[in-house]
Amino acid sequence: MPTVAFQGARGAFSEQASKQLLGDDLDLKPREKFIEVFEALKSGDVAYAVVPIENTLHGSVHENYDHLLNYRLPIVAETRARIVHNLIGRPEAEYAGIRRALSHPVALNQCLEFFKANSDVVAEPHYDTGGSVKTVMEQTDPSIAAIASAAAAELYGGKILKPSIEDDPENFTRFFLLASTAPEPPLDGTNCKTSIVFTTSNTPGSLFKCMSAFALRDISVAKIESRPLRGRPWEYLFYLDFHGSPGELRVQNAMGHLGEMTEVLAVLGCYPQAA
Amino acid sequence: MPTVAFQGARGAFSEQASKQLLGDDLDLKPREKFIEVFEALKSGDVAYAVVPIENTLHGSVHENYDHLLNYRLPIVAETRARIVHNLIGRPEAEYAGIRRALSHPVALNQCLEFFKANSDVVAEPHYDTGGSVKTVMEQTDPSIAAIASAAAAELYGGKILKPSIEDDPENFTRFFLLASTAPEPPLDGTNCKTSIVFTTSNTPGSLFKCMSAFALRDISVAKIESRPLRGRPWEYLFYLDFHGSPGELRVQNAMGHLGEMTEVLAVLGCYPQAA
Repeated sequence: MPTVAFQGARGAFSEQASKQLLGDDLDLKPREKFIEVFEALKSGDVAYAVVPIENTLHGSVHENYDHLLNYRLPIVAETRARIVHNLIGRPEAEYAGIRRALSHPVALNQCLEFFKANSDVVAEPHYDTGGSVKTVMEQTDPSIAAIASAAAAELYGGKILKPSIEDDPENFTRFFLLASTAPEPPLDGTNCKTSIVFTTSNTPGSLFKCMSAFALRDISVAKIESRPLRGRPWEYLFYLDFHGSPGELRVQNAMGHLGEMTEVLAVLGCYPQAA
Repeated sequence: MPTVAFQGARGAFSEQASKQLLGDDLDLKPREKFIEVFEALKSGDVAYAVVPIENTLHGSVHENYDHLLNYRLPIVAETRARIVHNLIGRPEAEYAGIRRALSHPVALNQCLEFFKANSDVVAEPHYDTGGSVKTVMEQTDPSIAAIASAAAAELYGGKILKPSIEDDPENFTRFFLLASTAPEPPLDGTNCKTSIVFTTSNTPGSLFKCMSAFALRDISVAKIESRPLRGRPWEYLFYLDFHGSPGELRVQNAMGHLGEMTEVLAVLGCYPQAA
């Protein structure tokens, strides 16, 4: 049974992503902080780590890009999880009887329309989404519900009273699966993506020159994001994903070309493109 | 006294940013949702709106970019606010006597080192950072503290028992000031930034061609970020900030050139570059 570390409590969306990536039969090792997830993999405590890297509402998780650059633990797969918030009660609870709903304030804030339409239900902040289901199940009052994932309902034996109560259904998070070593990159890069990080000085045209390493070789860029380096006002860190594999000669040539123009250049991993 | 809408409760970091942008003498109009902030400005209820656009830990706030594109309310200024979490008690409270600390779970999670070093202080989730100070001040127990901004301490009359207890001091949020109309863009673009949004089809090299509109005119790009358009798998939205003003001929030429290659192209605003 593979061991996998993730940030958060049992029933968190990172647990759902872990199952999408590795199947249901897992030895789950929840950690409090992202850096502890990376440490767990580096030290050999776990075989895999799963970390969120970007969300359709909130953007990239810069902290995890920093850890990817510092730890150099390779990305071996990606997945997308839809963030669905469900109203979850005790097994005997009825939807009409709910008067209090517990969850993480970020989740509560993503369900404002639900609370407007159900003004007799009071939103109550809780430490995390999964933990709010645990709290509901530990009590006896069937008028108390939690807002959390379907996985959290299943984990703690709660009943989904109303599925998908989030305001914006276009709420997805992209996760990376990390391992301690990477397989050899495929020679055929079709349906592969590669993630890299590089820094460049901000002279006019420097990014344009960096992009030429890909454009001149017809390599398609799937993501690009600049991030200012604090304390170094004219330098930038770039995250870039492209379609292809470091096993391809054209990609090796592009990396060589890019390396001429960058101070830091790191390949974070090559992995099958998620559907 | 200028009226300004922002998302969150009184004492939120958006209030701090509003004061940085417009001075201390403001008629503050807090709103629950970002879209309500944009609506308040569009309908003329307020003269200004202040919205967070990116954070050094959490990346870009895509929702607000969407609203900027849909509402076309111009950006007229930018600012950066450092996110500092302070331990705030009642006026008679002492640091050594604190046993419970209330705050938004995101703030609590950014102060994990504080709670590790002070294991006799219990972290308790609350609906928001500013509101946690209000709650502390409404009680009589001097062993209860809140974790929030210095502005929230001042607003509710709390005492800062320990400043800056956040784990990562490199936590900054960038805010935009929006108005209903924009001044004429300056003819001299020195120390100006301009924010644009555009979409392009993801054929290899399409972004490279878009970047050429800037590189060929020696216009320096300060930020670039791609965002996949959901439901249109091969199309991307780009956020781009550059140094310069639409009052400059070279910028007008670049926009004309870029317009040849993009489906949607919107100038979100031109504003003085923040220090």
